[in-house]
Order: sequence, then C-alpha cells, then structure tokens
Amino acid sequence: MSAMLARVRKVQDLPTPALVVDAETMAHNLDAMATALPGGRCRPHVKAHKTTRLAREQAGRGHPGFTCATPREMVGMAEAGLGEDLLLANEVVDRGRLEAMAALDARVTVAVDSEATIEAVAATGIREVLVDVNVGLPRCGCSSDEAGRLGDLARARGLAVRGVMGYEGHVVGLPERARRVEDTAASMELLIRAHQDVGGDVVSAGGTTVYDINTWATEIQAGTYALMDVTYDFDDLPFRPALWIEATVISVSDGWAVADCGAKALGMDHGNPTVAGHTVWFCSDEHLTFGPEQPVQIGERVRVFPAHIDPTVAYHERMHIVSGEDVLDVWPVDLRGW
Amino acid sequence: MSAMLARVRKVQDLPTPALVVDAETMAHNLDAMATALPGGRCRPHVKAHKTTRLAREQAGRGHPGFTCATPREMVGMAEAGLGEDLLLANEVVDRGRLEAMAALDARVTVAVDSEATIEAVAATGIREVLVDVNVGLPRCGCSSDEAGRLGDLARARGLAVRGVMGYEGHVVGLPERARRVEDTAASMELLIRAHQDVGGDVVSAGGTTVYDINTWATEIQAGTYALMDVTYDFDDLPFRPALWIEATVISVSDGWAVADCGAKALGMDHGNPTVAGHTVWFCSDEHLTFGPEQPVQIGERVRVFPAHIDPTVAYHERMHIVSGEDVLDVWPVDLRGW
Repeated sequence: MSAMLARVRKVQDLPTPALVVDAETMAHNLDAMATALPGGRCRPHVKAHKTTRLAREQAGRGHPGFTCATPREMVGMAEAGLGEDLLLANEVVDRGRLEAMAALDARVTVAVDSEATIEAVAATGIREVLVDVNVGLPRCGCSSDEAGRLGDLARARGLAVRGVMGYEGHVVGLPERARRVEDTAASMELLIRAHQDVGGDVVSAGGTTVYDINTWATEIQAGTYALMDVTYDFDDLPFRPALWIEATVISVSDGWAVADCGAKALGMDHGNPTVAGHTVWFCSDEHLTFGPEQPVQIGERVRVFPAHIDPTVAYHERMHIVSGEDVLDVWPVDLRGW
Repeated sequence: MSAMLARVRKVQDLPTPALVVDAETMAHNLDAMATALPGGRCRPHVKAHKTTRLAREQAGRGHPGFTCATPREMVGMAEAGLGEDLLLANEVVDRGRLEAMAALDARVTVAVDSEATIEAVAATGIREVLVDVNVGLPRCGCSSDEAGRLGDLARARGLAVRGVMGYEGHVVGLPERARRVEDTAASMELLIRAHQDVGGDVVSAGGTTVYDINTWATEIQAGTYALMDVTYDFDDLPFRPALWIEATVISVSDGWAVADCGAKALGMDHGNPTVAGHTVWFCSDEHLTFGPEQPVQIGERVRVFPAHIDPTVAYHERMHIVSGEDVLDVWPVDLRGW
C-alpha cells in the first residue's frame, strides 16, 4: 500500500473506476454515532464496508463489539485483532466454517433460529449464541413464540445464550420518521416478548436509520452510517454520504456521454447510481451512459454515487481515503468473500 | 488449487455460495460456437467469464483472438500466454494503463472513437486500433459519418487502423428472432458504411444472440455463449445455461425459506435470480428469501441462476467445474478488476 501511496497522491491521478471515501465526512459520521450511542450501545456492522482498517476507526471511537454477516468477516476481524466481541448476525450450518470461527482468538457469538442451527453450532465448539427472532422482515429468525424453547434447547446443548437479536429490515428504509417510529415499536414488542422468554443481557437490533428510535435494544447493529447510502440520507439523520466512485469520461456523443463505471463497479440491487450534476441513463458492465447537464470533456472526472454501498464495496479491492484533491490513505477491502 | 481439489471433490461439500459451471454444458456451448464460427470468425469476449482458464478452452477450440473490456483483462490474457490477437473493445485514456498494454508481449488493438482517444493511444506506444462506430446503442462509438476522418487521423498519428467495430447492444436482448434480424441489418448498414470510409480487414461486431444473424461482420464478439445467461436463452440458439450459484438453505419459516446467496454473490442489474423449483421473493446482501414450492430443509442445497452472469462472476474468486456431483476442477476468476 505504501508503494502505491507514493505513486498516487492526488484523486485526479487515481486509475478509475476507484472507490473513494471523503475522510472528513466519514469522521463526522463515526463521531456522530460514537456520541449518540457510545461504547457497546452501538455494535457497528462491518458488512457495510468490509474493511478492517475502517473497523479500527470505529473501535478507536470506543465501540468494543462488531456485527458480521459472513464467517469470512468474523475470521478477518479476529485476525486483525478486532475480536473482543464479534457477533455473526446470521445463520450458518457449514461445519468447517463454524469450526474455523470457534478456533479464533476472539469472543464469538453466533445467531441461531432453529433446532438445526443450534445443533450445527453446538457440534463445532462455538460457545455463545443469540436467538434470532423474526420481527417482521420475511428473512431469518424464529417466531417470537418459539424463542424461549430454542433458548432452552441451546442451553441444553451446552451453549451460553446471551440474549436475542431481531432485525427490523422492513422498517429501516421508510423515509418518514413517524412510520419508522411506529413500526420499530411494533417490531420491538415481538423482540422484547421473546427476550422475556429467552433471558440474557443482550437485545441486539436496529440499523442506521433507527439508531435514535430503537430504544428497546441494548445495542444497535448500525453499518450504513459510516459511509452512508444516498438512499438512506433522510432529513432526520446526522450522517452524510461519504463514498463515491471516481470515474473518467471516455466517450462523448451528441446528447450523451459515457463514464468508465458500470455494473461491475456498482451494487445495482437498489437501482441506478446518481452522478453529481448529470442525469444517469443506464449502466452496462463497464459503462455508465449519462445525459450531461453541461458539456463534459473526454478525460474529465465524474463522481458516481451508488444506490447501495454494501454490494458496491464488495466489488472493489481497496478504498481511497481522500481530503479534497489529496489521497491520504489506501485501505484494502479485506473482508470480501465468504 | 490442487490442495483445494484434494479437499473438495463433491458439489455437496463446497462451501456456499459457490460459483458452479456444468462441464458438459459448457463444452457443448464452446463446441457449438467453434463449429458455427470457426477460428477467427469468433473473437470470444472474456468479460463474460473473466477466467483465463476458460479462455484457454476457447483458444483450444481454434479461436486465435479475444475481446476484452478492461485493461486488466488485456494484461491478464497476455500474461496467461493468450495474447496472439487481443482487442480492447473499449475506450481508455489512462496513460499508465495504455502504456502497460503497449508493453505486453502480445498483439494489442484498442478501440478509438474520438480525437482525444486517438491522441491518448498514439502517445503511449500502442500500434493498432479499430475505429469504434455507434450502431444504435447510446454508448461509445463515433457516428458513422465521422469514422473515415478518425481513421485518417489515427493513420496520421502513426497508428495502423485494422478496421471498424460496432456493438449492436440494443439488438442482442430482443427475444424475437425476426426483430434481431431486422435491427442487426440496420445497425450493420451503419457499420459497413463506416468501414468503406475507414478501410482495413476487420469488421468486428455482434454477440451471442446474433452469432448466426450478423453476417456482415468478419468476426463476432460473443461472450455470453460460453456460460449462457438465462435471460438470453432464446429458442433459436443452441447454447444452454451452464452456470449457477450453489447455495444452502439456512432458515425455514412458515411460508418462506432463506438461502445464503444474496446481492453480494449475484449481479443484480438484470433483476432477481431464479431458483430451480421455487419462487424468489427478494435478495438482501447475503440472503435470498424464496417461497418453496415443496418443503425444504435447513442444510439443503438450492441452485440459484443469476439474471446476469457477467457481473455475477465478477464477485467470485473462483469457479467450480462440475460433472454431476463431482467437482472436476477449480478455476480462478483471475481477470477481475480494472
């Protein structure tokens, strides 16, 4: 990385497409969360950035524990010395991967939501679990009524049950704050009922857009706030978009232009990106066709803001930390894969 | 790779999500193309699979030249010894990357569509170009009328002009063959007119779904045919889908189930994937929620067919070549990035 830094010191000189993060905006976001939810009240989710160096910034602001979505993220965080309290907020039945996590020099907690996941975890040396409860999003999680029984089963299998988790993923995308308030309350009613049956100290839930709304959870699994999705940039939140793809205009025609940032550089599950100052027409594999609002030149740079940061980051090997025109640092996106 | 092969010999034992290619179907596709468009009549596009080992299979069937979309693909192909005739069917103005391509032990041809791209290419030691002509898709390419002038300019800058290229990307997705026939003819009228002004031996165009329709081009830039997108699986084509993501059911609820294959394992720009035998509801980052058509068990495998192979492959480090339940080989997806 240092050799690369020696070569590229200006944003203008980065080969494109390049993942770029504004250092000041990111620091603002990290500081805002550390102030609002200090220490263990926030358990940052690394799936949003997949970068141990960024997680280190979060740990440095006082958050001791982290949330992960994949075994690879758990292993990478532990190997980076960030394993004080790692939660895999996801179900895994792969014996080899569970054994690898159990062998880590780290505190490892894994979500379970069924007899089968409890048996898989118990067989591999993992010692601590949370019972994952469905709170309204049709994805993982047992029903609220079933949580107590699963907690008992886990204990009978020798596992320590730290509490419950439940992700109100159907709520976090609602732009209207009043709706988020109302629907979070309904979701957390289910989770708290399950917690009464399961016991333990931990009620883990939430995300960036309900960070100050979900007051039932003992810890908020916020990931997006660090780099901040344009899609979730609601008026009531203090977090600001910090990430874009630096791209180069490679072709200009009568009515449109093309930049070198396509669907292999952008998570596309939330739709097209936006380009500051221009109108996006469509993305191909390696191209973004846009309608320029003012004339653009071949070689000119444009900033492409992805509609969804998480799967965007997963395409890139490194992120460039910049301040104005200066490249301050280059961080490997080292938690990709599974 | 051999150590991994020694460990994992069965599809059932692959950690998931895993990119899987059916060896017989792929061989059928490669053979069908090599028979229909032998030798240089097909210039396989490596952007579809980003895998030099697969390109080697194509070269072994008699195709001497390849199409690339990124400098990284050009460099990787040359380093793999597959540089007999490499075409970058894309515009690049990055001096460092152009110089790196010029320095390759390979025949390197680069597309140009403007004075600026000609000047960039001429300044860096690249010797051969094609004039890229817009044939109806609003993306790169000069207008047909402008091609002759750009060809002259390139020659004046000391470049050898091998001919023209033009991609009828607005045609290749049309399911109705009659429409593809009609619209390809209209597109190629523009390209042939440009070719008359530019000269040279090469008229490079087309893709998988017009491989036998585009009879104007001297070579077809087909990529999809090797692994074959479900979306392009039209009745008139002999190519068959050969790739899926092997995924594991990790959670089962009343009415839906969840597999471990989400938007970070799937190109999502063409929409949701399909799951053999079930109904897809939605994808999250690491999850696919589906409605099972028959009961599924936790730990059970499902085959997820992406809606778009190219950006799917770009998420994965390796592809597993299988025959029935046996893993025959593991190929690194070694042309990722830019």
